[in-house]
Parts: sequence; C-alpha cells; structure tokens
Amino acid sequence: MDKFVEYVNSHRDRFVAELQDFCRQPSVAAQNLGMREMADMVLTRFKQLGADARLIPVEGGAPVVYAEIGSGKRTLMIYDHYDVQPPEPFDLWDTPPWEAAIRDGKIFARGVSDNKADLLSRIQTVEAYLATIGPLPLKIKFVVEGEEEIGSPHLPQFAQANRTLLQDADGCLWEFGSKDINDRPTMSCGLKGIMYLELHAHGAARDLHSSLAAIVVDPAWRLTWALNTLKDSDDHILIDDYASHVRPPTEAEMDALKAIPFDEAKIKADYAIPAFLNDLTGLELLQKYLYEPTCTICGLYSGYIGEGAKTVLPNHAFAKLDFRLVPNLSPDLVVDLLRKHLDRRGFTDIEINLTETGEEVARSPLDSPIVRAAVDAMKAIYPNEPVIYPTSAGSGPMHALCQALGIPAVSAGCGWHDSRAHAPNESVRIEDYFEGIRFVRELIERFARLGG
Amino acid sequence: MDKFVEYVNSHRDRFVAELQDFCRQPSVAAQNLGMREMADMVLTRFKQLGADARLIPVEGGAPVVYAEIGSGKRTLMIYDHYDVQPPEPFDLWDTPPWEAAIRDGKIFARGVSDNKADLLSRIQTVEAYLATIGPLPLKIKFVVEGEEEIGSPHLPQFAQANRTLLQDADGCLWEFGSKDINDRPTMSCGLKGIMYLELHAHGAARDLHSSLAAIVVDPAWRLTWALNTLKDSDDHILIDDYASHVRPPTEAEMDALKAIPFDEAKIKADYAIPAFLNDLTGLELLQKYLYEPTCTICGLYSGYIGEGAKTVLPNHAFAKLDFRLVPNLSPDLVVDLLRKHLDRRGFTDIEINLTETGEEVARSPLDSPIVRAAVDAMKAIYPNEPVIYPTSAGSGPMHALCQALGIPAVSAGCGWHDSRAHAPNESVRIEDYFEGIRFVRELIERFARLGG
Repeated sequence: MDKFVEYVNSHRDRFVAELQDFCRQPSVAAQNLGMREMADMVLTRFKQLGADARLIPVEGGAPVVYAEIGSGKRTLMIYDHYDVQPPEPFDLWDTPPWEAAIRDGKIFARGVSDNKADLLSRIQTVEAYLATIGPLPLKIKFVVEGEEEIGSPHLPQFAQANRTLLQDADGCLWEFGSKDINDRPTMSCGLKGIMYLELHAHGAARDLHSSLAAIVVDPAWRLTWALNTLKDSDDHILIDDYASHVRPPTEAEMDALKAIPFDEAKIKADYAIPAFLNDLTGLELLQKYLYEPTCTICGLYSGYIGEGAKTVLPNHAFAKLDFRLVPNLSPDLVVDLLRKHLDRRGFTDIEINLTETGEEVARSPLDSPIVRAAVDAMKAIYPNEPVIYPTSAGSGPMHALCQALGIPAVSAGCGWHDSRAHAPNESVRIEDYFEGIRFVRELIERFARLGG
Repeated sequence: MDKFVEYVNSHRDRFVAELQDFCRQPSVAAQNLGMREMADMVLTRFKQLGADARLIPVEGGAPVVYAEIGSGKRTLMIYDHYDVQPPEPFDLWDTPPWEAAIRDGKIFARGVSDNKADLLSRIQTVEAYLATIGPLPLKIKFVVEGEEEIGSPHLPQFAQANRTLLQDADGCLWEFGSKDINDRPTMSCGLKGIMYLELHAHGAARDLHSSLAAIVVDPAWRLTWALNTLKDSDDHILIDDYASHVRPPTEAEMDALKAIPFDEAKIKADYAIPAFLNDLTGLELLQKYLYEPTCTICGLYSGYIGEGAKTVLPNHAFAKLDFRLVPNLSPDLVVDLLRKHLDRRGFTDIEINLTETGEEVARSPLDSPIVRAAVDAMKAIYPNEPVIYPTSAGSGPMHALCQALGIPAVSAGCGWHDSRAHAPNESVRIEDYFEGIRFVRELIERFARLGG
C-alpha cells in the first residue's frame, strides 16, 4: 500500500472526528447562524496545513476564506462553501442535524454532503500529500465562500475585485458530486443558470369574509390565472419569446448525453413516481433534464392553510418560482420577458419580487485539462466507470468565479445518490469520503502532469 | 319613557358586564376549547330567566342548549350559537381576544359580534320584558348550538331528531345582522348554501431538489392547472353543467334587490379596492353578490413559504375552496360535478378532500309574518330605514333547522358594518347592543300580534 493511503488509513478516526467537528458548527447563511465561527474554523484548518490563508471580507456578507499552498507550473483552483442550508424541519431528522451522528457507516448532519465533506476532504488530502509524498506538484488556490446557499450574492463582485489573484488558475475543482443510483462516480462540466423570484397578488385592504368573494377580487385566483399563462400542462414554458432564447444542444453535447447511463427504473422507484414528465424516456428524458429550462413552483401560499375550514377571502397570495436556465437565457432576461408577458395579458397587478440576483449558465469544454484529469483520476480510484455529465441540472456561481475568468471547471465530490442535500437526514457514507480523498490526490497529480 | 326601556337603562352596567363574562369564556369549536363551560354558562343564564332549559347532547359534538319560555298562540324560534371562530392570529389584536376590553364605546372580543351579543341580548330582552311588561305574549324556543363555526355538522340530524319539538314554530329569529356602512339596520331572509372542500395534488415520495422539476411532476403546477379549469379570469365558474343548475332570480327577488341601498363608493374605500369584480355596479353588482354562486380559493399551499429562496420541488400542494350556493345547487351536486369535471380533463390525480358536510340554500318568503314583524320592529326602533336583503351572501344551517321544518326565518342582530366577524379586533358598539334589545322586544310583540 502506498504511503499516502497508509497515512490516511492510520488517521482515519481523526479525519472523521474533524468532519464531525465541522458539521457540529452550525453555519446557516440564510439565518446568519454561526457564520463567523465557521469561517474561523476553516481558516484555522488551512493554517494547520501551512497554507497562506486569510479571510477576505465581503461587504454586507460572510467573508471568503482564501488559502494558497504549493507551487508549480499549473494552478488549481478549488471552490467550496462553508455555509449550509437551514436544517428545518427539525422533526423529520432521525438524529439532530448538528449532532453529526454516525450510523450504518454514514455521518448524518446538515451540510455534511453539501458541502463540508468535500471541503474538508480536500484539505485533508493536502495534509496527507505533504506528509507522505512531499511538496505539492502545483499551486492550489482555495476559494471557500459563505453564501452559496443563499445564491452567492457577492461572489460575482468578489471574483471581479480579485481577478488578478484568481485568473491564473488553469482549472477549478468545483464543490459537489455524488455517486449515482448504481454507485457510479459522476462529474459535471457545467451548471444551469438560475433565477428565483416571487410573484405576489394583492386584494382588499384586509382579509374579508369569503361571502364577499362574489364581488371582491381574490388574489389567490389572480395568482392562479397568472401562473397558468406561464406553463402548459405538457410542461412547455409559454412565456413570450422565452423558447427563442434557448439554443439547441450541440452535437458534442448530445454525444455526451448518449454516454450517460441513467437508471430510469431505479430512479422512478426511489421517487415513487409512475413515470417521468410526459412519459419521457431515454435520450429525450436526459435532454429535457439537462438541456431544457424549467419554471418550477417551489412555494405557494394564500389565506388559511391550517386544519379544517376557514371561510376567508384572502388579501394576499404569492408563489416562489425557480427558473433553471440554459444557454442563452440569463437571469435578467427571464425577469424582463416575464414582466412583459404578464403585462400583455393584463396581469399588471402581479408584482415580481426579486429576492435573489440569479446565476448565469456555466459550461466547460469536455476536453479541458481539468475534465480529463478528473476522468483519469476517477478511473484510477473507483471500481465503477465514471459518468460524465456535460452539465448538471443544478446551479451555482460557477459562471461568476470560473467562466467569467476563463477557467474551466469540473464538479466532483463524495456524496452518494441518497445524500439528501437540502433535505432532512442529509448524509455522507464514510467509505465514499475516504475514496474522495484518494480521488483528489489523483486529480492533483494528474492535473499537474497534463499539458494545458 | 316606558318601563321596559327604563329597566334596561337602569341595568345597563350589569347587562354589559354579563356580555363581557360571556366573551371572556373561550368557546372555540374548532379547537374544542371551553365548549362545555360555555354551554353551562348559557344554560345557567336561561335558568335565571325561569326558562325550561336543558342541554340536548349531540353525539360526537358540543351539546345544543335548548330553552322554552312563555306561552301564546304563536311560537317564535330563536337560533343562536355559543361557539366562536378561532382567535388567531393573536398578534393582530389591539387588546387580547378574551379580554373583552371596552374602548370608544365598543366591546372588543372574539365572538362578541358573532354571536354572543345577539344571544345574550335576546335573553336580556326576555328578562326585561318579564320584569316590566309581564308574561311573554308568545312561546319562545331557543336553540343555541355549539358547532356553527365548524359548519354545524350535527344540526341537520338534531333538527330531524327533534322535529316534533321544533316544527310548531311559526317563525325564527336567526342569529346575525349588522348595520350597513351608512348605519342602516339590515335583515336577511335567506342564506346561500356552502360547500367547503380541499383539492390535493401529490408528487414524488418526498420533496426533491428543484433541479429535478425538469423531469419529475410538480404538484403545485398540477394544482394550478386543475384550478385554472374551474374559473376564468372574468370570474365565470367553468365547472361542467354547473351554470345550468343555477336558477335565475324571480321578479320578486329582483324587486327586493332594487330596494337595497348599497353604498359602493364607501364600501370600495373601506376595502381599499379600485373597483368591484368585473367593474360591476348597481343592480348587476348586487345580483352577482347575492344571486350568483362563488368558487373561492380560501387557502393555497405548497412547498417552501418562508423568507428568501428554497429551491425545492414540493411533493404536495393543496387548495381550500369555498363554494357559496344558490338555488338549485346543493353541496353534494357540487362535489359530483367537480369530480366529473376534473376527471374529464385528466385530473384524476387531484384528490377531493371533504372536510365539511356543506349546507343547503335557505330562502324565506319576503311576506312571511316573521319578516313583516322584523321590518315593523326595525322601523319602530331605528332612526334609519331598514334594508331588507332577500338573502345574505353568507351561509349557515338555516335550511336544516328552519326550511326543512317549514319555518320561515329572518336574520337580524346588533353588529355594525365594521364588526370584523372571523377577523382580529371583532367588536360590537354598546349603543347598537341596547338598540338590539329594544328591537327584539318590538319583534316579539309584533310577531305575537300578526296573523299567521
């Protein structure tokens, strides 16, 4: 067994304990809970490595933990985040979200999969490398932000303000990745963009007795009618001029799709759904999943939602909508098209409330060195063949931090198919965690060797 | 001044204190809070009158307080209820809902207007009558139920089981009534029916990351599309065969409408709305208000409704719908038409959840003795001309208790236009309360004298 693996094995208990410590420190950006404590904890861990580490303040937000270590011809950026999703609803957790309990070979905690295991495994990889192999064969620049789960509102400005610091990176290892339902490791070479917004409808000055609904506007109906104009029941987005901004996938992208094994039967069984939308299967299903935009109702509210009957005419209704974007749809464009679409149909009363700034689409060439290094590293470490997603269906600030600076990026991480990011009982399997450490070591070595 | 009025004036403080006592006893049927205590309190008050009073048990529900007093050629039924709406949300009350605080000549309490002031004013009227005028000129049968605010689920069976006890009543004074926005006293000679139900849509086995919405059903969209088929944005109910069951108003009903003064400008200003639905005014507005059925979204829920963004694909969505019914629409018919309508459009996945049993339409002839007595009594007591609504836009168990037993009924009470029944800061003006007592005395005398 090589010395790196031996070192990791012999420090196994401490590595796991450190991950538990990370998970026991709450760091909920949306609730401004424990953010400074977590940033300091990450900073301290970088300093233990001997890295040149510091907090870079972010005006009006949580600081970025920045760390540099190693030197060489190539520079690898590693992007992670130390904030996590809110843990609510608490009562659906089998063990408390900040306990980081170990059961059945898994650590259960809010944020363990998204994204503390990835973050710490990368730090511990560097520790083991320095302790057993020697100086790093390249320079690593860690960018660990604290606002990913609230849409990274300050990362675009951060990237621009620190452009000279960051832009010499030759590639970026992005923050997430999971094994699929058949335990094949996956990577993604891009992200959908996202725009998240609220639609609000207002009625009378106050809630009224529902008998008045015969003559006084019901904002819940206004909202229903407005929403209905946005998407038909075949899931086609109907916003005027929306479809014309979607570019079809290239041949290379379609080829990448064809190579993805997607175990439809197992996934349907896992979600307990009889079919995917529109009964799609095969390539059509994958194309819709990865290359088509979405318009999702994530939340809906009006009036009385408790037990039993309350005969109320509400005076307010809202929907939270999530638009996942593909080339060439941008967040600003979506808002503009949506406003015009609603106005043209007489829904000038429907208010668009922008709670987030949105994120642009990001795509890295499938033949970039960082992608090739990730593929080779996965093949070296995992018994199952890696699956290469040309893009993830999810979103993140990859465009702001990488694409805008000309840095190709690839996502990979130590989740499993049931890691339940953003949901109760989030977990990481401990064996996946240690495989992840070995994968990152391989990636570092291979990326250092590859031509640019 | 006559002795009755003198007696009421000299017992004014005690009468108000008794009303405060009634209001300080919570009696929330929906929460099963204080129901037995309130029933006992009402029973005791009837016994103080010398009435033959008892609790009539209701299987699975709160008991009916039944009381008889007086004798004569005619029998008057008086219907009230001792339960009240839930007081929530507490933080919108200026003084606590169970404090019954007096400010600006008003009592503020949950249930004071709906319906404890009406109930107690009728009892105190009898007290003052007996103390100053002598034995009642007719027999009164008080029926005071404890489940009105949860849809009177047991009152139809109660009425049928006690048919012989109740059916000799010649008329019924129903539970509610308010002065209008110009302080004119109002009465109603009928009620709309009601069906209240929930529509539920279900998705995957659990909430998922919203990126999956590209290929997994979003129940919030299913619900939106299903709802949208029920009503168009001109407020026409589109349920198949629904409109054909609505009978147009008779000539007499239209004449009654024409006599209603409806101060549109003041009402719009009060609700802070620029216009009524479809910009209706005048007779068309009143016709829609009183003679057309409704389909109201009283509640709407799916997914995440807290602050900010949560990118979740919900697995459940529901709407609470309130259908106010006119002749010849019945609650059962609505459910049947709705189910067929949804099924025909492929919405077999939308589940109809019946939380209530519904209530039938009730209408009393405008020339029935009880209505004539009420009109004459109002003219005798109130400085402003009474307004006669051929029907209320609201609902209640009038059909079950009165129409099914052949008893005409009229609603009148001591609310004002801003009494805020079912809402925070519910109130009754103390002067209206004492006018209400004088009105009930006049009603009793006039109804006793009128031919049947």
